[in-house]
Amino acid sequence: IENKNIEQNMELAMEHNPEAFGTVIMLYINCRVNGHAIKAFVDSGAQATIMSQSAAERCGIMRLVDKRWAGVAKGVGTQKIIGRVHLAQIQIEKDYLSTSFSILEEQPMDMLLGLDMLKRHQCCIDLNRNLLVIGSSGTETPFLSESELPECAKLSSKLID
Amino acid sequence: IENKNIEQNMELAMEHNPEAFGTVIMLYINCRVNGHAIKAFVDSGAQATIMSQSAAERCGIMRLVDKRWAGVAKGVGTQKIIGRVHLAQIQIEKDYLSTSFSILEEQPMDMLLGLDMLKRHQCCIDLNRNLLVIGSSGTETPFLSESELPECAKLSSKLID
Repeated sequence: IENKNIEQNMELAMEHNPEAFGTVIMLYINCRVNGHAIKAFVDSGAQATIMSQSAAERCGIMRLVDKRWAGVAKGVGTQKIIGRVHLAQIQIEKDYLSTSFSILEEQPMDMLLGLDMLKRHQCCIDLNRNLLVIGSSGTETPFLSESELPECAKLSSKLID
Repeated sequence: IENKNIEQNMELAMEHNPEAFGTVIMLYINCRVNGHAIKAFVDSGAQATIMSQSAAERCGIMRLVDKRWAGVAKGVGTQKIIGRVHLAQIQIEKDYLSTSFSILEEQPMDMLLGLDMLKRHQCCIDLNRNLLVIGSSGTETPFLSESELPECAKLSSKLID
């Protein structure tokens, strides 16, 4: 009986919830840091905003990294934190938003916008209209389509992020 | 000169962005599964919705778990997936929302609402008003305050989630 229940449950799901058996396009937006284009991952489940060392080098902001804040980040495995940029501007559309972020040594994503930054700027992750709204200004920016995603996002098939 | 820059940068940050030096209250909502109260973590950075085995036992839905979908979840370390519930209802306020989710063996959080479920129901994570809006119905539910958070959220001080 139990197996039959499960089978019926799965058939129902395939009929009513077919996208549950596909993959989900994760949330990325276009932004700029120090004039350089970056595709940033929008993650309400992350406490802090981070940038990879390679992205920080590309954006020319390594000189702002305070190495007294070096350490170890837990979460997706363990990663070395090189230090912290206490204040920088992220450009989203026409807005310049101030934020601080940690620089991680080996991090496939260029940048991850965490809850600290999203709360500070009263953002709204709107999955109805598929865009990010900056609450402090009303500016809207679309989430990237599958073809616009960075390489690291296309390769990844993690269950949890 | 570089050290002076970093010092000024930090002083500016402390003045203009003091919350960057505190901790961020993560996003949880109250919901019900099979009539049982659950505090669910809202995570736009997670591809899939999950529930812990202990929560699934408490909610009495272990009989719906399809063990053919067992496997390993990567992300926060590695965790054993016991199986998958193909279709269940999550009650948020007065709404009953259908979703599928995987059951993880050792998972401190009772439940995590991932992007699959958030997109399916066209949710809006509104950090301006501090609430989750269910797009398909317009129902709103507040994010929990610090004192209402589950124990696992209070203990955690991970940088990335």
